[in-house]
Amino acid sequence: MSSREAKEKYMGIAVREAYRGVAGNAGGPFGAVIVKDGEVIARGHNRVVRAKDPTAHAEIVAIRRASKKLGRFDLSDCEIYSTCEPCPMCLAAILWAKIPRVYFGCTKEDAAKIGFADEAIDKALKGRKVGRRFRMVPMAREACLKLFALWQNKSNRVLY
Amino acid sequence: MSSREAKEKYMGIAVREAYRGVAGNAGGPFGAVIVKDGEVIARGHNRVVRAKDPTAHAEIVAIRRASKKLGRFDLSDCEIYSTCEPCPMCLAAILWAKIPRVYFGCTKEDAAKIGFADEAIDKALKGRKVGRRFRMVPMAREACLKLFALWQNKSNRVLY
Repeated sequence: MSSREAKEKYMGIAVREAYRGVAGNAGGPFGAVIVKDGEVIARGHNRVVRAKDPTAHAEIVAIRRASKKLGRFDLSDCEIYSTCEPCPMCLAAILWAKIPRVYFGCTKEDAAKIGFADEAIDKALKGRKVGRRFRMVPMAREACLKLFALWQNKSNRVLY
Repeated sequence: MSSREAKEKYMGIAVREAYRGVAGNAGGPFGAVIVKDGEVIARGHNRVVRAKDPTAHAEIVAIRRASKKLGRFDLSDCEIYSTCEPCPMCLAAILWAKIPRVYFGCTKEDAAKIGFADEAIDKALKGRKVGRRFRMVPMAREACLKLFALWQNKSNRVLY
């Protein structure tokens, strides 16, 4: 199978995963798969509504499953296929997981058009527009810096 | 108890939660609590290393627990206290959960100083700097738009 055919196959699996989620009323129309060495090792669809979990986006579900399967938090040898351009939460999760390549179908503008907040959250994170009610309040930095100092002096700390 | 004293109490619980995580080698030095109507309804510490889950940041753990406890994905009547300014993944999760107020201790620059990627990921999401190896590739948008059309025509769809 050519590389292009393989990519279309993986995206096809992500699309079917999304249809499954919609049919089961799990959440929004989003699916994702994670591929390692030409093999689909995890798949997921949006489960925000069914799981009552605002973090249960397709990519997050797939990343958690892939990490569990491989027994590690570093997925730098994997690729992710998503039916939609990842929202900032998922994109940051992909970066934390060190996944180097993302294939995506619809854009965040497409997601905004069907009523999802992806684009608004993206703008909020870029500091261009934050909801009137939303506030971030700094406090107790000194106490928290002590915690960081303890961490820095910990000989067996694991970075991720 | 005055409002200020209450806030210090909640942040103190987040700090203790972080110390617990560090002592148990669960992950980085981060803790979070979620408060509703003056009551701590969920707490969490970073568990990336122990759970082998790159998404298991303190705020994500606390949000998942609060949502489970309340049985809903909408936490707009809650506040979150975190020992550190939330990374983009957690900040976007907070926005998806509709939590209107975030109290935080250390800054993302403080986190960068002790070796965490928060600031780098923040810059990547703002389009100012993306790692050389990281690529996002659009594909199969038409097939994915069909999925969105199905969703739009679904009478019992739930937005979040």
